[in-house]
Amino acid sequence: MTFHAIAEVDVLEDALDPVATLVDECKLRLNEDGVKIRACDAANVAMADVSLPERAFESYEADGGVIGINLDRLQDVLSMGSSGDLVHLELNEETRKLHIEIDGLSYTLALIDPDLIRKEPDIPDLDLPADVAFEGSELSRAVSAADLVGDHVSLSADPDEQTFVVGAEGDTDDVDLVLGNDELATADVGEAAESLFSLDYLKDMARPIGSDVIVSFRLGTEMPVKFRYTNGEASVQHLLAPRIQSS
Amino acid sequence: MTFHAIAEVDVLEDALDPVATLVDECKLRLNEDGVKIRACDAANVAMADVSLPERAFESYEADGGVIGINLDRLQDVLSMGSSGDLVHLELNEETRKLHIEIDGLSYTLALIDPDLIRKEPDIPDLDLPADVAFEGSELSRAVSAADLVGDHVSLSADPDEQTFVVGAEGDTDDVDLVLGNDELATADVGEAAESLFSLDYLKDMARPIGSDVIVSFRLGTEMPVKFRYTNGEASVQHLLAPRIQSS
Amino acid sequence: MTFHAIAEVDVLEDALDPVATLVDECKLRLNEDGVKIRACDAANVAMADVSLPERAFESYEADGGVIGINLDRLQDVLSMGSSGDLVHLELNEETRKLHIEIDGLSYTLALIDPDLIRKEPDIPDLDLPADVAFEGSELSRAVSAADLVGDHVSLSADPDEQTFVVGAEGDTDDVDLVLGNDELATADVGEAAESLFSLDYLKDMARPIGSDVIVSFRLGTEMPVKFRYTNGEASVQHLLAPRIQSS
Repeated sequence: MTFHAIAEVDVLEDALDPVATLVDECKLRLNEDGVKIRACDAANVAMADVSLPERAFESYEADGGVIGINLDRLQDVLSMGSSGDLVHLELNEETRKLHIEIDGLSYTLALIDPDLIRKEPDIPDLDLPADVAFEGSELSRAVSAADLVGDHVSLSADPDEQTFVVGAEGDTDDVDLVLGNDELATADVGEAAESLFSLDYLKDMARPIGSDVIVSFRLGTEMPVKFRYTNGEASVQHLLAPRIQSS
Repeated sequence: MTFHAIAEVDVLEDALDPVATLVDECKLRLNEDGVKIRACDAANVAMADVSLPERAFESYEADGGVIGINLDRLQDVLSMGSSGDLVHLELNEETRKLHIEIDGLSYTLALIDPDLIRKEPDIPDLDLPADVAFEGSELSRAVSAADLVGDHVSLSADPDEQTFVVGAEGDTDDVDLVLGNDELATADVGEAAESLFSLDYLKDMARPIGSDVIVSFRLGTEMPVKFRYTNGEASVQHLLAPRIQSS
Repeated sequence: MTFHAIAEVDVLEDALDPVATLVDECKLRLNEDGVKIRACDAANVAMADVSLPERAFESYEADGGVIGINLDRLQDVLSMGSSGDLVHLELNEETRKLHIEIDGLSYTLALIDPDLIRKEPDIPDLDLPADVAFEGSELSRAVSAADLVGDHVSLSADPDEQTFVVGAEGDTDDVDLVLGNDELATADVGEAAESLFSLDYLKDMARPIGSDVIVSFRLGTEMPVKFRYTNGEASVQHLLAPRIQSS
């Protein structure tokens, strides 16, 4: 197994942060054409699927191996670099350690046996009729609004108005945020869609998203929501399972 | 009962913050000429009296009703707006809820029965012989100084020097801050005055006061202190009862 | 005993901060030519030796007395001043109190009987063969790197490479930071040196050091490390005892 790569510290952080909101450990698939990470939280509620293509690296050499990583640890090491610093990663297959160099610092990271890490989930093929996109700042605002009243957040889309509505109901108060023409970068709502989600998960998943990053949502009725965005050089896809609506 | 008003988010926050340092819930008197709030903390030590006149609003319609408000909740909702955003407030008398709109966000706030909120206090007519005014930054510095040594703060005024002195005595150390000609915007000390106050109350009441806001104090001997300032469009008056001096 | 001095608040803070990382109380030797502080932490692991010469003061008058100071308390009082404010210090020998004035604020600090404060340590005469100097920012980075993996930090110097190496070993991971030509302001490594230290102590001692301050280290093998720097007007020397290496 060979892995030897050089990338800017920010490029690696952008790829790892979305996964780290869900899990502490993950597998890195060191494919010939780039690194892939897919992970699901312990409760099987949320999934992250991240690709960092070969062209995101200054130099990249891999042959399809799989390694297990402690994400916190790796994020801590990367935090020792400054923006723009180059990180050298080199796998020592014999010792099962990853050698990391940033600006004079040499770190030897013990790897985790990939067989001891939860199986990577499959991404279900879902027919989600509502497709909207908007900036991360709107998502962050929607999450804060829902957080004012409750633990759950309802996401819905209206085919007549071509709007996306974020709502939450508390014991006494309720709140709605309507994203329409002014806020949506694209809107293609084929039919009405509405699903309820755990706010904590959505909050965690929204955290690493920059305020001017466009996030594309695909929503159905009592279905998981899928959303995608580009974090620096990394393509990120999330899937979040719905809560059953009490009615 | 009718209430329908539009104001900048900052205008409303400036009126609510001084009250929120003392109580969690309060009555809003929705008079024809503006909103009035008067509240006293649970221990009857400190009082806030705030007026937000009709002209502070972009649009204002009210007929003298009284509503009960959870202040924390309302402050949280207002914090969803950015400086300069317009807030629409509309009372639904039937549901006893206040409908709040800020920049696409719709919030329905359950009101509290005003009869369940502590009675609004009367403002006593006091003869306070010392009258001085200074900037909020001086008040904040005085509070920090007293906080170095103890739980109480002595406020006194000297008719000969026309100074205002903030002092505190701890078990071993003591501290004095003298505000004189250089620090006082106005000084009219008719006779010597000195009273002792709980530092925690004064600290809380000083918090929302901007550093360049002029605060007018009226002080007597073993009497409550009254102080007034203008917070944006809101007129704020505070009254703080003295501690009995152990001597 | 006479002590009457005026200095900028920053000058005093720069002299006290390095001592305050090790002890809560210390003796100030009020010599004719300036103030000297020497203190050792309760476990006898780390020492600070600080000199603030007469010329660092705007005005200075002392005759060799010794006073005991609560450092936290004095730092809190100084924090009431703004950068550049002049602080007046005057000893009242009768009351055994230090009178402190900063910008209108008068503080009376009760002194501690110097006989109740731990004896000032002697500075051992050590033959330390490695002498290197580098900026505070490198020390801070080295401490953060070691903190990624463990509680101890190894400092070593290589006479062939004329490098200074900071290393740490954890249960699974390890880290090295090599400071060479590019990072070292001076390097005079006479022979190989390596000692192990408690990271917590080094972290605390590094905290008050500005990022562009040059720190001079003298290192031996299984010997204390000595390091010196200039903090504003104050000369600071630290000594840190080694941990016994488990081998």
